[in-house]
Amino acid sequence: MKFSFTVTRKDSRTRARAGVLRTPHGKVQTPVFMPVGTMGAVKALSPDDLKAAGAQIILGNAYYLYLRPGDVAIQKLGGLHRFMGWDGPLLTDSGGYQVSSLGSFREDGESILSRIDDDGVTFRSHLDGSEHRLTPEDVIVIQRNLGADIIMAFDEATPPRGKRYAQKAMERTHRWLKRSIERWRELQENRGRGASPQALFGIIQGGNYKDLRRESAEFVVPQDLPGIAIGGASIGKSPDETRENVDWVYDLLVHDRPLYLMGVGVNPQDVVAAIESGADLFDCVAPTRLARMGHLYFGKLQLAKRKWAFESEFRKGRMNIGNARFRLDKKPIQEDCGCYTCIRGFSRAYLHHLFKSRELLYYRLASIHNVRFMIRLTEVLRKVILE
Amino acid sequence: MKFSFTVTRKDSRTRARAGVLRTPHGKVQTPVFMPVGTMGAVKALSPDDLKAAGAQIILGNAYYLYLRPGDVAIQKLGGLHRFMGWDGPLLTDSGGYQVSSLGSFREDGESILSRIDDDGVTFRSHLDGSEHRLTPEDVIVIQRNLGADIIMAFDEATPPRGKRYAQKAMERTHRWLKRSIERWRELQENRGRGASPQALFGIIQGGNYKDLRRESAEFVVPQDLPGIAIGGASIGKSPDETRENVDWVYDLLVHDRPLYLMGVGVNPQDVVAAIESGADLFDCVAPTRLARMGHLYFGKLQLAKRKWAFESEFRKGRMNIGNARFRLDKKPIQEDCGCYTCIRGFSRAYLHHLFKSRELLYYRLASIHNVRFMIRLTEVLRKVILE
Repeated sequence: MKFSFTVTRKDSRTRARAGVLRTPHGKVQTPVFMPVGTMGAVKALSPDDLKAAGAQIILGNAYYLYLRPGDVAIQKLGGLHRFMGWDGPLLTDSGGYQVSSLGSFREDGESILSRIDDDGVTFRSHLDGSEHRLTPEDVIVIQRNLGADIIMAFDEATPPRGKRYAQKAMERTHRWLKRSIERWRELQENRGRGASPQALFGIIQGGNYKDLRRESAEFVVPQDLPGIAIGGASIGKSPDETRENVDWVYDLLVHDRPLYLMGVGVNPQDVVAAIESGADLFDCVAPTRLARMGHLYFGKLQLAKRKWAFESEFRKGRMNIGNARFRLDKKPIQEDCGCYTCIRGFSRAYLHHLFKSRELLYYRLASIHNVRFMIRLTEVLRKVILE
Repeated sequence: MKFSFTVTRKDSRTRARAGVLRTPHGKVQTPVFMPVGTMGAVKALSPDDLKAAGAQIILGNAYYLYLRPGDVAIQKLGGLHRFMGWDGPLLTDSGGYQVSSLGSFREDGESILSRIDDDGVTFRSHLDGSEHRLTPEDVIVIQRNLGADIIMAFDEATPPRGKRYAQKAMERTHRWLKRSIERWRELQENRGRGASPQALFGIIQGGNYKDLRRESAEFVVPQDLPGIAIGGASIGKSPDETRENVDWVYDLLVHDRPLYLMGVGVNPQDVVAAIESGADLFDCVAPTRLARMGHLYFGKLQLAKRKWAFESEFRKGRMNIGNARFRLDKKPIQEDCGCYTCIRGFSRAYLHHLFKSRELLYYRLASIHNVRFMIRLTEVLRKVILE
């Protein structure tokens, strides 16, 4: 089997664990932070930049790639790996989050741009307004065409519309999961010679409600899929909410499967929380997005009372490089960072200038730093677990 | 002396020549195409990208850097070389072109944003509208603070306002040159220990008028400066105009000095024209600007009737990567290009997708290709001259 997961070591104090995830495109040392390449590129970064930053596995997004350039176009071009020049492990998100959170909502809470029914989602493209319809089965086919190593079941990300709706969305997600699994099994069994196997992960939803989360875990976990994800806005929102949401379902999980916390990693503290909660994989667009907005991570892990905490002289663990205080600052973003931007000696003053001037080079140098920062943090915590 | 120029070989058929320019920051094999880093960065490219593309010498712009972050700030940060992380030869343009072409013009032809008098230029910053005044002497001091290896005299780029004005602007440029030289000599003689010498180039102006061009050459050449530049809109506008403008003054030049054609290199044909006209150095923002607009160079030098010509299946020698025909094109931009983008195997289809999606990665990959293309063209022509 080309896909497997082994837990190498468990932390004695927390639920953190170190392991190895094997995929048809190589091994991943877990826990791992996965940079997000929504539209077929991690914003401002090349695959070589990502390798140099220590990225082991990256994400694509089925919804965006279906709309442009099209999953069939990517298949004709040799699949997403070849298309974007990334030969390592790759995961695609199903786009459930995108279609269920599209655009503005009407007064009755319905989205103007998408309409969800029990069979699937009808939505208008954010690119040209054209109408599209996707079912759970379609999304599995799209992800087969893209060819990622790990694919996600189509889900309805719980919208902020109360518990009654959260339950409805969760139940729909469960029915969709069944259909996703069926289509996935068919495609796996009948896949062409030379086509890589793909691992399907199911997603636990249920919003920020303990009973729904547990109900969802009780449904998703017994499906016996190669991996389990926890999704929804309450995951990754804050370290405490992430910890709490995982706590609610932890006893229901099977621990020989990788646990993927979706959308976690806005701040360094979120990474610590995710790993201590037992996450093996997590992803977030925030490190690159924040970089583009001028927010650069800074700080260190400190061991205090046998507890690892992230400490920084900057609020939220990041400096705002646009601040005038950096105008003449000769130091790199962080002396001991080890990212290309810091090693190469680009000063805060230079980054401040590039940011103020909206120079394209800024976005790359800043994104390299923030991505490497989250990956290094994860590497350090992995080392701590292994020791 | 840390600055020298040697002609290694002259072409038998044209005025093309190969040489070596020595500067305090290293040697430059001429003829050379110089990428432009207006605001302290060649747009979308890092110094390492430029090195990998074969760039030997790059430009900064005194006007932009004076306004932001300020030449004094850059001096405090160790000079422009250190600021931008480029340890090779560096040239700064004086900003004459910028201040004399600022903004819109009133009905009487006067610029609204700048006012030129015999003593200097008063202008409003394009950043915040603040009023500034620069004299030829100021601009020499600014360039001393930036610390480039080659600096340019402050000139009034001939505006498109008829011959009478062209003459007036040229005469002013000549008076400013005298003052620039005086200030430069003072600064060179009194430069601090450890400060690199700087070579000042004078600029021949006179617009698209043969008699004025000759008059300007007769004034500028005898100043006996380390290099001579030819500026103005008629240089670089088209291969024919470039050839004609250089022809007009060629017999008046001293040929042991490097000849710099300012702003040449929009299309590959312009590079051929510049080199065959006798240019040792030339620069242009177009390769990176065109890249950002989706125009990627494609084509080859062909020898026909002992004459080198650039041939391409695309009009103007460049493809428009936004064209739908590239949507499923698996080929690199140009098979035998040798730039990172082409070698790494990024397909036209991928670049098309990134361009359509406005992904930041596009701008870097496209700029690398176009810059490398102009540099490779120059390298090939240099080899032809040496053989």
